[in-house]
Amino acid sequence: MNDTFLKACRGEKVPYTPVWIMRQAGRFLAEYRRIQKRADFMTMCKTPELAAEVTLLPVNLLGVDAAIFFSDILTTVEPMGMELKFFPDKGPLFVNPIRTVADIDRLVVFDPEDKLAFVPQAVKILVKELKNKVPLIGFAGAPFTMAAFMVEGAGSPRYLITKRMLFEEPKAFHKLLDKISRLTTAYMKSQINAGASAVMLFDTCAGQLGPADYTEFNLPYVQKIVKALKPTGVPVIYYANGCGGLAELVGKSGADVIGVDWRISLDQAVKRLGKGISVQGNLEPQVLFASKKKIEERVKDVLDGGSRARGHIFNLGDGILPDTPVENVRFLIDAVHRLSRRR
Amino acid sequence: MNDTFLKACRGEKVPYTPVWIMRQAGRFLAEYRRIQKRADFMTMCKTPELAAEVTLLPVNLLGVDAAIFFSDILTTVEPMGMELKFFPDKGPLFVNPIRTVADIDRLVVFDPEDKLAFVPQAVKILVKELKNKVPLIGFAGAPFTMAAFMVEGAGSPRYLITKRMLFEEPKAFHKLLDKISRLTTAYMKSQINAGASAVMLFDTCAGQLGPADYTEFNLPYVQKIVKALKPTGVPVIYYANGCGGLAELVGKSGADVIGVDWRISLDQAVKRLGKGISVQGNLEPQVLFASKKKIEERVKDVLDGGSRARGHIFNLGDGILPDTPVENVRFLIDAVHRLSRRR
Repeated sequence: MNDTFLKACRGEKVPYTPVWIMRQAGRFLAEYRRIQKRADFMTMCKTPELAAEVTLLPVNLLGVDAAIFFSDILTTVEPMGMELKFFPDKGPLFVNPIRTVADIDRLVVFDPEDKLAFVPQAVKILVKELKNKVPLIGFAGAPFTMAAFMVEGAGSPRYLITKRMLFEEPKAFHKLLDKISRLTTAYMKSQINAGASAVMLFDTCAGQLGPADYTEFNLPYVQKIVKALKPTGVPVIYYANGCGGLAELVGKSGADVIGVDWRISLDQAVKRLGKGISVQGNLEPQVLFASKKKIEERVKDVLDGGSRARGHIFNLGDGILPDTPVENVRFLIDAVHRLSRRR
Repeated sequence: MNDTFLKACRGEKVPYTPVWIMRQAGRFLAEYRRIQKRADFMTMCKTPELAAEVTLLPVNLLGVDAAIFFSDILTTVEPMGMELKFFPDKGPLFVNPIRTVADIDRLVVFDPEDKLAFVPQAVKILVKELKNKVPLIGFAGAPFTMAAFMVEGAGSPRYLITKRMLFEEPKAFHKLLDKISRLTTAYMKSQINAGASAVMLFDTCAGQLGPADYTEFNLPYVQKIVKALKPTGVPVIYYANGCGGLAELVGKSGADVIGVDWRISLDQAVKRLGKGISVQGNLEPQVLFASKKKIEERVKDVLDGGSRARGHIFNLGDGILPDTPVENVRFLIDAVHRLSRRR
């Protein structure tokens, strides 16, 4: 088993910097697009064999140092009692968004081993397939990110409906966050029980909160989830998107690894996050559209910054873009391994 | 003349914290929407009497401590040789975006006193009307923000076409930035010559650059413009949107005042920007949809942070949203004056 990823999570010595890519099982791979022709996105998520097949693509095609379970952060929301629909142009939308205290009260904190059984099933297939290869990362959405989607019903430029609830009905919003957090903890545990070697909380919307609201309506729930997962012994990664103004707060999450977005230098992030934390990131995804010379130059910068943390897992600072040339992704992975071996 | 705004820009003692609001002459005012029925946006910008009338609305209706010249950062681009069209759903679009070196070579660095004569004309009307009231702020877009619009042809979620040019044709991109900067300097000077008491550079897209690219493709041009305006003696404000990961760099702009967005605490911004700089900002615009109690609570936080800088002009951390209740805006302005007088 290539355990460089797990070692870097724990801050142990590694022969080279491990690398994987957010959304590595995605549309930039021709093989993914081929599978997509047979099955829509949610079918891919909900069919264990398909989810496993897609998860393995980047491991076999690109040589990344970790696999991440193929799924969507929104799969946990339907069994809570919300109806999710995919629209070709708009993406996923909840047709009955959370708008009142009664809506929140109706949400069910269900048993993920039961209602999301396809997840541990897929994880078990993957653990078998990945044996002697690379570790598998499980994941879920972070509480505020989930709440924002559930209240807005979709992504939003300003999250105004969410903000109004948070400002005017803080108790209700806390109740929502609490329900989401309890479910998320159980969901991540079910992935760990099935064999996931690490778990990651995706906080895509973290940067949609100013520091005061991040402190009140996000950080305590992230901390609670991380704490509850500690006894499992698997590393927890917390990806906080848009953390430029929040880095000191993000550093208090308790996670073993912080995923850093690309709008802050990794060097500065390492300083501001605080000690005893590994970092994951943070190449700008757009750089993969540039020349190999430019990619290599930027890989060096990221490796430099990462070398100041107790451990570094190379990744992009955001999900890979669908039109990214695969050739450049292969070059990137090779460059990370080659340049970090020399250190 | 109420000169609290100018004094705060220079870090001089003021009896209370001056306040104005980004996009204060905008759709949240019923009076603005009434004028909008008579004339479209570009006609409002290009007709000196109309631009002056709109500029005065918030001064007379809200009691703000500064007026900002009503215009759009894109007015300077048409005379450079680009065709701007407004589409009802999409907003402004350039129909012939910059894609090649030849496109850049064709751009004209024109004389703004000549081709944008309506600007100094409107400024002159306003200086007369505002006498004994409040100072007038002139403005322009910052170089990278302008370049990004000109290359993409419109706003963009990723600015991928711009990034490709910047990575792969840096010399061409520098040429574009140089042309924009020379024009911007002349344009701001023409506003100062006509009587503007301060000028502001809007860098809406600053946060779309990682620190390395911000340093190479934006900061030097901002610095050059600021330096060229110094001899005029009027304060220069530089609004850098999304500066959470860039604050130390933004602090090197040379501007008298830094406009700070709301995703960073003003407290932290003041520390990271460095000494000898006044700050402007940074209430989250969404807070104006909350209760007066919440607004007052957040006003206090912003005043606290601002009190640590050499000077503070209260403002939002981004443009005011079109549906903002006017009553809350009045309350905000009153609260800033009332709470800061007590200090």
